[in-house]
Amino acid sequence: MSEATNEEGLIIYRHEDGFEIKLNGSALISHTTDQPLLYVGYGEETMEMYRGNFDIQDYVIERLALRHAEWKKQGEAEFVTFFNAKGGQPYLTLSLEQEAHGIRLAFTSEQSSINRVWFRVASDAEEKVYGCGEQMSHFNLRGKSFPLWTSEPGVGRNKKTYTTWQADVLDKAGGDYYTTNYPQPTYVSSKKYYCHVETTAYADFNFTKPNYHELQIWGVPRWIIVEAAATFVELASLIADRFGHQPELPEWTYNGIILGIQGGTGVVEAKLERALSKGVKVGGVWCQDWQGKRITSFGKRLMWNWRWNPEEYPQLDEKIGQWKKQGIRFLGYINPYVAVEGDLFQTAKAKGYLALTEQRDIYLVDFGEFYCGVVDFTNPEACEWYKQVIKENLIDFGLDGWMADFGEYLPIDLTLYSGESAKLMHNAWPVLWAKINYEAVKEAGKLGEIVYFMRAGYTGVQQYCTLLWAGDQSVDWSLDDGLASVIPAALSSGMVGNGLHHSDIGGYTSLHGNKRSKELFMRWAEMGAFTPVMRTHEGNRPYDCWQFDSDDETLEHLARMTEIYTLLSPYTKAMVKINAELGIPVQRPLFMHYEEDERSYDIQYQYLYGPDLLVAPVHQEHETSWTVYLPEDEWVHLWSGAKYTGGFIQVEAPLGKPPVFYREHSSYKELFREVGQL
Amino acid sequence: MSEATNEEGLIIYRHEDGFEIKLNGSALISHTTDQPLLYVGYGEETMEMYRGNFDIQDYVIERLALRHAEWKKQGEAEFVTFFNAKGGQPYLTLSLEQEAHGIRLAFTSEQSSINRVWFRVASDAEEKVYGCGEQMSHFNLRGKSFPLWTSEPGVGRNKKTYTTWQADVLDKAGGDYYTTNYPQPTYVSSKKYYCHVETTAYADFNFTKPNYHELQIWGVPRWIIVEAAATFVELASLIADRFGHQPELPEWTYNGIILGIQGGTGVVEAKLERALSKGVKVGGVWCQDWQGKRITSFGKRLMWNWRWNPEEYPQLDEKIGQWKKQGIRFLGYINPYVAVEGDLFQTAKAKGYLALTEQRDIYLVDFGEFYCGVVDFTNPEACEWYKQVIKENLIDFGLDGWMADFGEYLPIDLTLYSGESAKLMHNAWPVLWAKINYEAVKEAGKLGEIVYFMRAGYTGVQQYCTLLWAGDQSVDWSLDDGLASVIPAALSSGMVGNGLHHSDIGGYTSLHGNKRSKELFMRWAEMGAFTPVMRTHEGNRPYDCWQFDSDDETLEHLARMTEIYTLLSPYTKAMVKINAELGIPVQRPLFMHYEEDERSYDIQYQYLYGPDLLVAPVHQEHETSWTVYLPEDEWVHLWSGAKYTGGFIQVEAPLGKPPVFYREHSSYKELFREVGQL
Repeated sequence: MSEATNEEGLIIYRHEDGFEIKLNGSALISHTTDQPLLYVGYGEETMEMYRGNFDIQDYVIERLALRHAEWKKQGEAEFVTFFNAKGGQPYLTLSLEQEAHGIRLAFTSEQSSINRVWFRVASDAEEKVYGCGEQMSHFNLRGKSFPLWTSEPGVGRNKKTYTTWQADVLDKAGGDYYTTNYPQPTYVSSKKYYCHVETTAYADFNFTKPNYHELQIWGVPRWIIVEAAATFVELASLIADRFGHQPELPEWTYNGIILGIQGGTGVVEAKLERALSKGVKVGGVWCQDWQGKRITSFGKRLMWNWRWNPEEYPQLDEKIGQWKKQGIRFLGYINPYVAVEGDLFQTAKAKGYLALTEQRDIYLVDFGEFYCGVVDFTNPEACEWYKQVIKENLIDFGLDGWMADFGEYLPIDLTLYSGESAKLMHNAWPVLWAKINYEAVKEAGKLGEIVYFMRAGYTGVQQYCTLLWAGDQSVDWSLDDGLASVIPAALSSGMVGNGLHHSDIGGYTSLHGNKRSKELFMRWAEMGAFTPVMRTHEGNRPYDCWQFDSDDETLEHLARMTEIYTLLSPYTKAMVKINAELGIPVQRPLFMHYEEDERSYDIQYQYLYGPDLLVAPVHQEHETSWTVYLPEDEWVHLWSGAKYTGGFIQVEAPLGKPPVFYREHSSYKELFREVGQL
Repeated sequence: MSEATNEEGLIIYRHEDGFEIKLNGSALISHTTDQPLLYVGYGEETMEMYRGNFDIQDYVIERLALRHAEWKKQGEAEFVTFFNAKGGQPYLTLSLEQEAHGIRLAFTSEQSSINRVWFRVASDAEEKVYGCGEQMSHFNLRGKSFPLWTSEPGVGRNKKTYTTWQADVLDKAGGDYYTTNYPQPTYVSSKKYYCHVETTAYADFNFTKPNYHELQIWGVPRWIIVEAAATFVELASLIADRFGHQPELPEWTYNGIILGIQGGTGVVEAKLERALSKGVKVGGVWCQDWQGKRITSFGKRLMWNWRWNPEEYPQLDEKIGQWKKQGIRFLGYINPYVAVEGDLFQTAKAKGYLALTEQRDIYLVDFGEFYCGVVDFTNPEACEWYKQVIKENLIDFGLDGWMADFGEYLPIDLTLYSGESAKLMHNAWPVLWAKINYEAVKEAGKLGEIVYFMRAGYTGVQQYCTLLWAGDQSVDWSLDDGLASVIPAALSSGMVGNGLHHSDIGGYTSLHGNKRSKELFMRWAEMGAFTPVMRTHEGNRPYDCWQFDSDDETLEHLARMTEIYTLLSPYTKAMVKINAELGIPVQRPLFMHYEEDERSYDIQYQYLYGPDLLVAPVHQEHETSWTVYLPEDEWVHLWSGAKYTGGFIQVEAPLGKPPVFYREHSSYKELFREVGQL
């Protein structure tokens, strides 16, 4: 804490009336009596959950400006204690710690009753912010508030769509622009710093104010850290170092698409055969219902007892080996709940591995016409047992991957083994769930051979999750819920260190008359070819949705897309490696490599795929040409070879030829040219 | 301020740590360090208006508990000054004044920057509250918060209806359960006290908490008063004494229905003739378009230049006299805005009578495809001029009544003559508008001869408004927007001293495919017969709505209803007189006369009509019998003569025989029996 001559990076200045943390010479975090840094208070929240959808309201009883600050030094460390008024009681103490790339503000609460903290970070009209986990409606978060609470995203996330309204009124299942399976109290600024709040409490980041951001936390956070870098690429590495790197993807994933098929061994064989005969390159088959299924009013649902169901999948044990010889892996499904009808529930119940109600009964969660117990991940023995379930029932059985579903449903009124508050563990749950999967795979010696994909996340999921999937999109063209929404999802989660992203090709949710069209499926497959993993999903109502094998044209189009995907794989693989090593995501916003280009900061439906490809998926219906923004560079249109130097351009984009451009000076130029010949 | 031996009524007790105002022995308003009475703070609101619909958001920067209180005595008066903490700065001073029936707490702000005040009143689980102006979705307000801000109610006031959703998405015109033309910061408790906050600032009364109500005001109020009585009837008189009594209705209103007709002299004559020939008793014809009309996408709209339009209504000057001889009065329409195309606008502009923008230009309000100036009622000369317009163009021309429409649209960003803030005058505006009408009529010597009816209101409108009308219902059966909603509207406005209420028979708003049915019109007419005034409205889209003369059966049904209405008029007139003298509303909640009956406190779709009639309008479609709740008494079914003593009963309720009961021991028994013979 000293006057510095160097104005670069983050530096703390102390002055008579407070202090200032400057970023490259401008105030970022500052405190004075008139402009206090912190507000604290007491609130009474109401939180209601209905099948993973939350209705959260707050009533703030007191909100006090902490105007008065006092300093003290203990050894090397300096502490600032904050008061509402001089001579009153202290509320919070911060220790300010200068680190290699940033500054950490560690919090100590001086009043145990405080359950609301508001922390301000200076901003200006030009700044843009990104991240906050996986955000699907807005990439640049400026101008809105973002509640950070893992939940179902909702069937419709735009209150102005008829689908959302129906979901709200009929099922209490409508979402909003901020609802996500994967929130994270971390944002990245266009000023090339990131700010992270270490907490699992409910938080709400308010980016609506012209001069500051206000970070609200329902509890005193452990610390807040800001780190800065000279470039976005370097900042990405700092972020990955903070939250963890993903391993590389298994080699076999590059063999082709993972086909989502259900219905039993015979159906899988027949559909696989047909796909292969049409030239579709297949890396795996993914059968959610490998452990059985049930039918509910929502659609086809799974049995939720995590072991092979030989009635549904006869001879699967042998088949898995045969398929593997063909270069086709078998993937399944698991989640952190066990259905009451299954033997796993009985075991967990007998051993005390399930979370309890306040009255110490087994807590049963309503998943829509069936009930499940919650494996209590705060109980180390329960974790070991569930890892064992994964190892024995999934890995040893021969699975090379699975959807590790859910994680965002932890009810807030259950009693946990550790005695921790469910309200505080709710956001932590997806990470505990990821960790179980990670450790099971690692302990089985299969890291880098197995891939599991998750939708739920929170701070730290980066290091435990081998692949994100974008959750349950609607099978439509809506910006907030359909194909388009996957792009900001990939970009925002990438900004906070999740470098591997993919989505259900064709989307998932088909409700209220929403049915997947052939064109949507095809456009989604086109985007999928330019993501690390290609995978289809039948959807929740398969018979209402166009499928990969619904006609020959679709199969032929998919064959072309898988050919592109596999041909491109040396490049993709290199990008995945860079992500593993340096933490630079595979899908990147345009400004990551063109930071001087002001327009690039608001482009949320295009992405750079590595540094050398620019992908602008056609996300609207009935389009045969598409407007693309190119930052200034030398670009070559992948299919026509036409050259461009930047700006808004219009290109032909018939089905099968999505708008993709490569950098003329890429070292992969020959590979791209070859792909363009397809 | 003394220890009292008498535990009845409202008494102030002072104790070491604060004070307590007890009502009948229980704490009602109290202050201690641990349970402070007051919270104050600073907020930054955003308020956006679109055609009378407001989107209001608040951001509370600080909210401080005023825990520390200090007393001082000045002469007879005692003052309490409140601090956040002892030794800090003072925020508010209250003077506590014992009055004949209650206690007044007068506020003095000690910090000019305070713009939020929260005031708590003790409650318990059993208490119910009513009033807050004219509330249309809930009569008992407990369990919800009620923002108090005069506005368009919205096209749909239930966020779960498709109409509301469409209005929100297409027109920004959807309302919510609390939106109303007439809010008032006054509530009446089932504990037989009322509490009134004297302010015109935006307020929000929170009745959701089990142990207290929290009254939020966006500014320091002038005072808060609580008054108590031994019975609800006595309380009604105290309320009327506080806010003002209505004059009696003109004698001619009892001659029959007021028919809402548009289209010019010829159309009016023809329709009137047909109605009379079918036996409809007519007291007046009400022609909104007497001053001309225009067509917009919303429907038929008026010209908004307040003088006779001889092109539209040839020979109206003579006709008015002829009709009057037949016992049929002519009513028109006016509102506080002047359309840019008219001569009144030009006059007002020239004389400086119009409100201005911040840049001192004429402020034009968008009323939907046309623009108007706002007559500035803070300018005494403008008021005199507008009164003159009413006197000359309406009264002298021969009008015996009019709809005094609007009042709730005052934009919050205009500049007023008086220099007062438009945000603070917004809620006051309906009362200023009522006062203009009142004074014009009074100065013309026509009080009690002319009736004007208004939808917008606020504190004090009681004394200036001759008759409320329930605003723009939807032409449907919905509870929140249709026929049913008129009943809580009448009851709630009655609770705060508006004893005369009526509604558009058939409703008004026909949008998004909503069309008025024959049955709806007939059921509405049945209810209208048991309100002080019967009046029809064509609706905003007359051709989409069933009209009083759409077929003979409807005319015959209406004839029957007007016969009932006129035959009943001696009773109605007596009730209207009681309202004028004692302030007891004509339409009353059941508990007003049956306060021991716990069930009666939650009945919001029935009413007592005076003390001796109980009316339970059929407000749902396709019903021929109806369930009615009768408090314990001796009741006679009006049509069958069947006797009941109380409880839930089922009665036949075919069209033409709405569920109405009279008290066996009523002094009007013979009259009721006669009505029952019809």
